[in-house]
Amino acid sequence: MRRKLYDLAGADPERRFSPYCWRAKLALAHKGLEVEMIPWRFTEKDAIAFSGQGRVPVLVDGGRVVSDSWAIANYLEDAYPDRPSLFEGEGGRAVTRFVNGWADTVLNGGLIRLVLGDVYAHLHEKDRGYFRQSREQRFAMPLEAVCAGRDERVATFRQSLEPLRVVLAAQPYLSGAAPAYADYIVFGSFQWARCISPFVLLADGDPIAAWRERLLDAFGGLARNAIGYPVAA
Amino acid sequence: MRRKLYDLAGADPERRFSPYCWRAKLALAHKGLEVEMIPWRFTEKDAIAFSGQGRVPVLVDGGRVVSDSWAIANYLEDAYPDRPSLFEGEGGRAVTRFVNGWADTVLNGGLIRLVLGDVYAHLHEKDRGYFRQSREQRFAMPLEAVCAGRDERVATFRQSLEPLRVVLAAQPYLSGAAPAYADYIVFGSFQWARCISPFVLLADGDPIAAWRERLLDAFGGLARNAIGYPVAA
Repeated sequence: MRRKLYDLAGADPERRFSPYCWRAKLALAHKGLEVEMIPWRFTEKDAIAFSGQGRVPVLVDGGRVVSDSWAIANYLEDAYPDRPSLFEGEGGRAVTRFVNGWADTVLNGGLIRLVLGDVYAHLHEKDRGYFRQSREQRFAMPLEAVCAGRDERVATFRQSLEPLRVVLAAQPYLSGAAPAYADYIVFGSFQWARCISPFVLLADGDPIAAWRERLLDAFGGLARNAIGYPVAA
Repeated sequence: MRRKLYDLAGADPERRFSPYCWRAKLALAHKGLEVEMIPWRFTEKDAIAFSGQGRVPVLVDGGRVVSDSWAIANYLEDAYPDRPSLFEGEGGRAVTRFVNGWADTVLNGGLIRLVLGDVYAHLHEKDRGYFRQSREQRFAMPLEAVCAGRDERVATFRQSLEPLRVVLAAQPYLSGAAPAYADYIVFGSFQWARCISPFVLLADGDPIAAWRERLLDAFGGLARNAIGYPVAA
């Protein structure tokens, strides 16, 4: 197959947990595009050196190489305009960038402080030194300390999701009546957590859970069938 | 004129500070629609009883009555499709709802804890009892206590704006190359603060300030010419 996506994997090569790779996988599924998934570990920089940078997702589509999940979504939208739209118009594309910015900072910033230790536990042995060193430098504390007190701190995380609840009280998806890229951005983060952590993120009855269930089922259960932990209903 | 907007006013009837009314005023300006502004105070419930509820903005457009800023924006978009679009497509409309939800919860929730006392100071005498009682009930503390420590707490508020900075590093407006309703939602909150408070919200050099300046100048300086306080450059 001429279309390939380099996809972050854990010790089990079938455990694929990167939130940014999930954005790309769901965008490809939305466009109805087949893709060969290439498992990749953090320290395999040589394998994606052709992309001119060192992070996944990296999409190879014929002769095109695109890295960065936002760039991949935009590439797919422009290269396959006759397929279902990821943005439903230029206004959608522009404003979805705000959802992307919120997810990258607030959502993923909150999640990593709940599941960092669980990420580490699922990494391939050869990635652990790199991961520990880079994350301990980023958080300026031992890796094991980052998630301390998460049972108490999860309340603050749940509060930070209030903008999602406001939207989902008014419409079934962030993108309106049907899911599109804004949903995949946010869902990708929940799926990241699900793939590596049994920690319960949402309180019983949280309306975000129903939306998450629908996205777990999207595209024939693409996300639900991925190796991970059950989520509380 | 057959088009009227009921607009929250302070002791000075020309001081118009509601963030939700600013959303509606900027949406009307974006559509190029003339409108007569009717100053309204919190306790003048009788004056808008015809709308079936007790809050502004209320738009009267010929025989149509529309209250709630989100409903007004959607009404204007649908009733005036040949005028410049507020959303640039259905994807833009759907995802702008997330910006609306974020502004209503995170942004306005943060701002009110910085400027509530300044709002009170600018109210008409007849509104003060209602305002004090309703806000002290909402915050479960004396009105004067809500903004205590704001010089320290503003750092947390500034941190909460990080999703805006991520977007504005990549494009000039939340809505892309030109401003649209997503921008008016967020700007309306900064304009609210500007109309009643000298408190400096943004640090020197914050890129959000340059975006705010451009919106102060939009529509011939509609927002900049409104009665309020200077903002730090």
